[in-house]
Amino acid sequence: MKFINEIHEGETIRGIYLCRVKRSAETRNGKAYDNLQLQDKTGTLDGKVWDPNSQGIADYDEKDFIEVFGEVISYNNNLQINIKQISKAQEGEYDPADYMPTSEKNVDSMYNELLSYIGEISNQYLHQAVEYYFVKDEDFIRAFKGHSAAKTVHHGFAGGLLEHTLSVLKLCEYFAKTYSIINKDLLYASAICHDIGKTKELSDFPDNDYTDDGQLLGHIIIGVEMIGDAIRTIPGFPEKLASEWKHCIIAHHGELEYGSPKKPALAEAFALNLADNADAKMQTLTEIFKDKTGTDWLGYNRLFESNLRKTSI
Amino acid sequence: MKFINEIHEGETIRGIYLCRVKRSAETRNGKAYDNLQLQDKTGTLDGKVWDPNSQGIADYDEKDFIEVFGEVISYNNNLQINIKQISKAQEGEYDPADYMPTSEKNVDSMYNELLSYIGEISNQYLHQAVEYYFVKDEDFIRAFKGHSAAKTVHHGFAGGLLEHTLSVLKLCEYFAKTYSIINKDLLYASAICHDIGKTKELSDFPDNDYTDDGQLLGHIIIGVEMIGDAIRTIPGFPEKLASEWKHCIIAHHGELEYGSPKKPALAEAFALNLADNADAKMQTLTEIFKDKTGTDWLGYNRLFESNLRKTSI
Amino acid sequence: MKFINEIHEGETIRGIYLCRVKRSAETRNGKAYDNLQLQDKTGTLDGKVWDPNSQGIADYDEKDFIEVFGEVISYNNNLQINIKQISKAQEGEYDPADYMPTSEKNVDSMYNELLSYIGEISNQYLHQAVEYYFVKDEDFIRAFKGHSAAKTVHHGFAGGLLEHTLSVLKLCEYFAKTYSIINKDLLYASAICHDIGKTKELSDFPDNDYTDDGQLLGHIIIGVEMIGDAIRTIPGFPEKLASEWKHCIIAHHGELEYGSPKKPALAEAFALNLADNADAKMQTLTEIFKDKTGTDWLGYNRLFESNLRKTSI
Amino acid sequence: MKFINEIHEGETIRGIYLCRVKRSAETRNGKAYDNLQLQDKTGTLDGKVWDPNSQGIADYDEKDFIEVFGEVISYNNNLQINIKQISKAQEGEYDPADYMPTSEKNVDSMYNELLSYIGEISNQYLHQAVEYYFVKDEDFIRAFKGHSAAKTVHHGFAGGLLEHTLSVLKLCEYFAKTYSIINKDLLYASAICHDIGKTKELSDFPDNDYTDDGQLLGHIIIGVEMIGDAIRTIPGFPEKLASEWKHCIIAHHGELEYGSPKKPALAEAFALNLADNADAKMQTLTEIFKDKTGTDWLGYNRLFESNLRKTSI
Amino acid sequence: MKFINEIHEGETIRGIYLCRVKRSAETRNGKAYDNLQLQDKTGTLDGKVWDPNSQGIADYDEKDFIEVFGEVISYNNNLQINIKQISKAQEGEYDPADYMPTSEKNVDSMYNELLSYIGEISNQYLHQAVEYYFVKDEDFIRAFKGHSAAKTVHHGFAGGLLEHTLSVLKLCEYFAKTYSIINKDLLYASAICHDIGKTKELSDFPDNDYTDDGQLLGHIIIGVEMIGDAIRTIPGFPEKLASEWKHCIIAHHGELEYGSPKKPALAEAFALNLADNADAKMQTLTEIFKDKTGTDWLGYNRLFESNLRKTSI
Amino acid sequence: MKFINEIHEGETIRGIYLCRVKRSAETRNGKAYDNLQLQDKTGTLDGKVWDPNSQGIADYDEKDFIEVFGEVISYNNNLQINIKQISKAQEGEYDPADYMPTSEKNVDSMYNELLSYIGEISNQYLHQAVEYYFVKDEDFIRAFKGHSAAKTVHHGFAGGLLEHTLSVLKLCEYFAKTYSIINKDLLYASAICHDIGKTKELSDFPDNDYTDDGQLLGHIIIGVEMIGDAIRTIPGFPEKLASEWKHCIIAHHGELEYGSPKKPALAEAFALNLADNADAKMQTLTEIFKDKTGTDWLGYNRLFESNLRKTSI
Repeated sequence: MKFINEIHEGETIRGIYLCRVKRSAETRNGKAYDNLQLQDKTGTLDGKVWDPNSQGIADYDEKDFIEVFGEVISYNNNLQINIKQISKAQEGEYDPADYMPTSEKNVDSMYNELLSYIGEISNQYLHQAVEYYFVKDEDFIRAFKGHSAAKTVHHGFAGGLLEHTLSVLKLCEYFAKTYSIINKDLLYASAICHDIGKTKELSDFPDNDYTDDGQLLGHIIIGVEMIGDAIRTIPGFPEKLASEWKHCIIAHHGELEYGSPKKPALAEAFALNLADNADAKMQTLTEIFKDKTGTDWLGYNRLFESNLRKTSI
Repeated sequence: MKFINEIHEGETIRGIYLCRVKRSAETRNGKAYDNLQLQDKTGTLDGKVWDPNSQGIADYDEKDFIEVFGEVISYNNNLQINIKQISKAQEGEYDPADYMPTSEKNVDSMYNELLSYIGEISNQYLHQAVEYYFVKDEDFIRAFKGHSAAKTVHHGFAGGLLEHTLSVLKLCEYFAKTYSIINKDLLYASAICHDIGKTKELSDFPDNDYTDDGQLLGHIIIGVEMIGDAIRTIPGFPEKLASEWKHCIIAHHGELEYGSPKKPALAEAFALNLADNADAKMQTLTEIFKDKTGTDWLGYNRLFESNLRKTSI
Repeated sequence: MKFINEIHEGETIRGIYLCRVKRSAETRNGKAYDNLQLQDKTGTLDGKVWDPNSQGIADYDEKDFIEVFGEVISYNNNLQINIKQISKAQEGEYDPADYMPTSEKNVDSMYNELLSYIGEISNQYLHQAVEYYFVKDEDFIRAFKGHSAAKTVHHGFAGGLLEHTLSVLKLCEYFAKTYSIINKDLLYASAICHDIGKTKELSDFPDNDYTDDGQLLGHIIIGVEMIGDAIRTIPGFPEKLASEWKHCIIAHHGELEYGSPKKPALAEAFALNLADNADAKMQTLTEIFKDKTGTDWLGYNRLFESNLRKTSI
Repeated sequence: MKFINEIHEGETIRGIYLCRVKRSAETRNGKAYDNLQLQDKTGTLDGKVWDPNSQGIADYDEKDFIEVFGEVISYNNNLQINIKQISKAQEGEYDPADYMPTSEKNVDSMYNELLSYIGEISNQYLHQAVEYYFVKDEDFIRAFKGHSAAKTVHHGFAGGLLEHTLSVLKLCEYFAKTYSIINKDLLYASAICHDIGKTKELSDFPDNDYTDDGQLLGHIIIGVEMIGDAIRTIPGFPEKLASEWKHCIIAHHGELEYGSPKKPALAEAFALNLADNADAKMQTLTEIFKDKTGTDWLGYNRLFESNLRKTSI
Repeated sequence: MKFINEIHEGETIRGIYLCRVKRSAETRNGKAYDNLQLQDKTGTLDGKVWDPNSQGIADYDEKDFIEVFGEVISYNNNLQINIKQISKAQEGEYDPADYMPTSEKNVDSMYNELLSYIGEISNQYLHQAVEYYFVKDEDFIRAFKGHSAAKTVHHGFAGGLLEHTLSVLKLCEYFAKTYSIINKDLLYASAICHDIGKTKELSDFPDNDYTDDGQLLGHIIIGVEMIGDAIRTIPGFPEKLASEWKHCIIAHHGELEYGSPKKPALAEAFALNLADNADAKMQTLTEIFKDKTGTDWLGYNRLFESNLRKTSI
Repeated sequence: MKFINEIHEGETIRGIYLCRVKRSAETRNGKAYDNLQLQDKTGTLDGKVWDPNSQGIADYDEKDFIEVFGEVISYNNNLQINIKQISKAQEGEYDPADYMPTSEKNVDSMYNELLSYIGEISNQYLHQAVEYYFVKDEDFIRAFKGHSAAKTVHHGFAGGLLEHTLSVLKLCEYFAKTYSIINKDLLYASAICHDIGKTKELSDFPDNDYTDDGQLLGHIIIGVEMIGDAIRTIPGFPEKLASEWKHCIIAHHGELEYGSPKKPALAEAFALNLADNADAKMQTLTEIFKDKTGTDWLGYNRLFESNLRKTSI
């Protein structure tokens, strides 16, 4: 089977893909057809089923893995497959890992790097509480490693949550070394846990959409509850420290209107907010500029409220 | 001893009052004196100690109960006491209850009324969880009954939290009866608990100021953690319901910029926000208009962003 | 004839409907066809005229009542009628009342309830002025009973203005009983008249669109002029009371940016604003949740700036 | 008697002035004294009554015309009078006109100029309606000529309303000649009447403060009601034109948040808003720069949100 | 050849037009076709190439001048040409001036009028600096005369920059004569040069789009640099005056959020901002109302945040 | 002479200090006195001259260096000096360097570090242009080394501009190493020069106030003009690169409302904005927390819109 990024115009393709989107439509003559969006880890491909009631087209739904057969054409400079046959793929016929976008960096290396930062947290209470999830909770570790950091925007791929967390952590390391007012232990513990609520705010791939709790509570509230769960298991955890740590989590969006119920009040909360914001912006730019060459303007970007382009040197 | 609202110009007073504020100042001749604000449950009275180093003036601090002796004059239409003697009062010489502003309504009656609303919650999980605090937790009940709902603004007196909660609850009862989309159980449980975090956000009287947790976390986060503590004690509490209840708590300020990390998404969350806002506004107006007569304009009010006056009929 | 909410897929239908929308389009082959939206009081139905120049299709325009003949199919889970014949219906062949969305509540009962509130206004001047419209002006009464409260959003059906006014009035009754600073007479008179300008801001059904005066002046200005017209007929109406009443009308949107030229300055103006806002929100939610079951998320709602869903219990 | 702008340091003064402000204060020794602000048409002068209970100081109140006797000193580069004697002046002993700030331009000339613009309004309905106030209503004419355009900010002197109206009118004349889409008659009638509500929004000099109606309704609502009163006297006044004229009045602040209940929708409404805004800004600058020389920075100005200075050439 | 505004339904046309837009599309049957937008100085015309691969259709691109042959039909009340033949036009076969929208006013007359204002600048330094561009720099003069003042919105035609500049200048003349605090020399020099940066911010017709420098720097920064270039050529140009002039340029948008890095601080900067804003708004309205008759509402206009219509008289 | 941070209550002091502020006041008895603020590099001290007309008090003005003699008392927990004698100090009697707050870091070391970053700029054009100021322009180098980065807020001391620039540069180095989309040369050149306009926006110490150009143009415009001056000296400097560099300078405040006339459009402009903002915030916190111990709340901070405190661990 060919990955989507290897497919060319004019080819006849047979392969299994995730049916990410399925939408019925109708030609002006009143003839029904289906628009599909096929996905694998390398990208997406539009598909058309012009004759959805033909014998070759089996029953299938959105989010199914389907085997498709058809011809690839180019339409408005985009590839598109006119699908003649569809059958539902059976578990075992495909490896789900081939169908989700994934961090280009090695997940285990990144995780080991994160563990080494945990090793630097000398405050025993914070150290224990962080280990509660990142060392002792196998389910959490698996979820954290495989999660995205966002539904869209930046780090929207498996491993993205880990990649973003590590990147924020490294910038926090820079801040801790540069500004002596910062307590490294509190900042590291806060950076490592700042987005752990996302493991429950977003569902797993390939769905990667807001969960019910994600909608009702959001990752900030979920995260502060998870912090509370860890703290309750540690006798003698200082109350003041617990509140400071939770404060850093809830204040990390920096402004009430961005969903933080409190603005930063501690130096570490400011540092975490600055690091989170900086990595989110730089990574989003990285994803926007990926595969772009030249200095053509890319058009108005709503997130940055600006037209964007690459630099000439 | 005379309560402050019974004192008249020209009297010579001896009595015990709470020293709410003590600020040193200096005359233009370089002579030190002290500005005091005395308080009892009926109001406050400005005091001047023109000779703070005289023998009659004992050591004392802000928040002490002090016995003062002096003459009451009228200055700029306000009463003021020129204090000649001060001694610190001993516990037992005074009843602290006489020194804190208190709801004019009967606390126990209000509490019984609130209990009757709890009795109407038919969902067993919500019912149990609300009882966890309001029926079974003596310390909580005592704190809840004696707390204010705010440092300043509205309901800033002992019993104010209970009075505000009951008033919000009654408006929620109106909404539940009027709009059939509302689930009464969820709305009642949410209204009753919407401000329970204030028992930890604000310290007790006579201090009634933000606690460390109040500053770092705020009553919304404290409240949602308290809800979580109650739920954990109840086997089988439905997860979806738990999230919905927590959602109503965190969304009750209605807007992100007012400190709610999520905007309302459920009908009950909207209803609670509307009821909380309505009672806060109407009660604030009630306190502003208290003791005012006539239709003179009261001046620009920052909270309402408007000049205010009473109505002519 | 079948009402739209009783039509099923596969039926062949002949009946008279209001042609709410008529838009010409063209297939990609350059063949013209027409898109229609048919309406009766129970809902709307999309129609297609694939052969608009055939003999069976008579001349007709938007807003005409037309008799259509065609087959009902299901397209993308929505019903649609492929229309073969159209003729213009003559007056007398249909009852216009069957073609406009109407309050589910009994209009006369609601109006009687409103009259009983008018009976409670004891201030003779306010009482007379309210009766000027609601008791003595037949044209106004007919218009008020038949009007919607909005073009879209909430209460967008005949009788909606009355239904909304009564609902606001009842909440105002609650406020008047709960908060003693409120003058019941002024609040009732203001609630009853707060949206009377809408009888001229929006045209009658089936059009229900902004009038020229609605665009140029809006219902707040129109309403305050109508109040002035009533007051001029009543000798001795106190000037101060007149201004207070007008103030409640112009301030009922609560904020300058919502079109109130003054922010509330009287307790009654605040109460009216709170009641109007609360009913508008709760009724909008009621209309959104209508016919919805389950706890699926309904998607982002622009008015509430939030994703919405029903509650699980 | 000397006008305030002719008084010098070291002089002993006896004269009648308006007591604009009277505030009791107390020295740190507990001795009462009074702070006064005296006013005549040329400016204001601070006064101190160090011995308010002495025989020479008669009873008097704010807004009284008082005869004062005292010595003028310089304090922090400002003149100040230490007052030894005060008696209340009797009507007839002074000319009120000497005590209110007044336009430097000739009021009658300005009014004649305004009348000549009215003569240019060729639409008979608008012409009659404008004459209703500006030609036929003696009380209105007297009030309009003597009124200020604002409590503070710009044109805050007797005749200021006329001066501002004429200035706006002239700029509107420029617009009408430059942009052919503008109807001169409607723009002139709107410019002439745009602030007539100020005759009732602000009380007369020397008070010049918001009236009760000014607070409750504001000059936009008062003005549109006055327009309505005029129109009602003119049989056959076209309804559409009436609404357009009223629209120009209510939209002349340009934005909802500046108190206009509708944004401009007609070219004349835009032109009036631009002219009103331009004259308000340029006149405010004129008053700020008055008597200033050199290019020193005048400090941050809250209205303009900018530091200001004069230009070097 | 026929100009676009002279073409009628049913005609068969052969002529040369600018191909402003070319977009490929596909019928539901999978058949490719092209959507074109043709332009000349009198307007635009939609075109369809239903058979883009036929022999009669030569190669061509967007922005090419093409000779088209086809039939004009009316579709949804708009004219549209079904194109049978296309060939690329050669230079010499057409006059580019016929294909760009152009000011209706005479460019040379306007320029002479502008020169006469330059003649009124008596300050020698400002006079020389303005002449540096407007008298001595042939390239600049040519560019300035032929430029638009905007990509869209107002004055978006050749000569528009000159027309807008002259209109702003005339309003500034009015201000200079009306308000004595204004220095005419500085205001004229600032008005004349306020948008000179647009000659480099926007590319020439027919492109008329943002240049790279336009995107990166904008016309305010480009303009202030051009002012600096002129000043450097004039020995003894007073530094303070240079800064004041530059200030007027950079502050002419009036608010930071509109792209001015400083708010106005000088009377001339305020006057320029008011004049620029007034002409932009009135000219935009003029273009919107062009060719419109009657008082129908034109629909919500995003720029003015209002529905618009013409006036009835 | 004693530095201000070494002075204790009860001491009698004679020494030379900078008179930063002098304000006349008057006791309630009408007796004049002067309030001073004395300054040296270690801090400030309030002073009172109770008898400003005594023989011992010579003539002096704000910004003079004065020798004072007096007694130090403690007032409201702050030290204050009651001054008996004042004489103006002569040049030579004091070292101005002792009177201005100065970076605690070594200016020459910091400058060398900055030079080493310049050495890393491999693009010859950017390298030359940066050297134009930082290597070849002695006056600029002296000014840059001695300047503050702000009037108040952060880095408001001599050397502060260098310290801030270096700190921003180091964070930019971090970004350049972390995110491969960044061009190091452009980012370094932009970071080094981002605030060079401040050398002309703020006057030298001890004044350290906005200059006329600072008020009229601001450091962003001044800076981009300085960049232009450097570029003009370098033949062949690529135009596109020049615009990109200038863009990074003008966009470094990140938002129009913070005074950037363009929002960032290049990755380097975003990185510079993030680095500038992060260092400004962290350094401001550092200065706020300086000398503070414990975890007491420091009170609401307007810049951060939050109450602040130090962390408990």
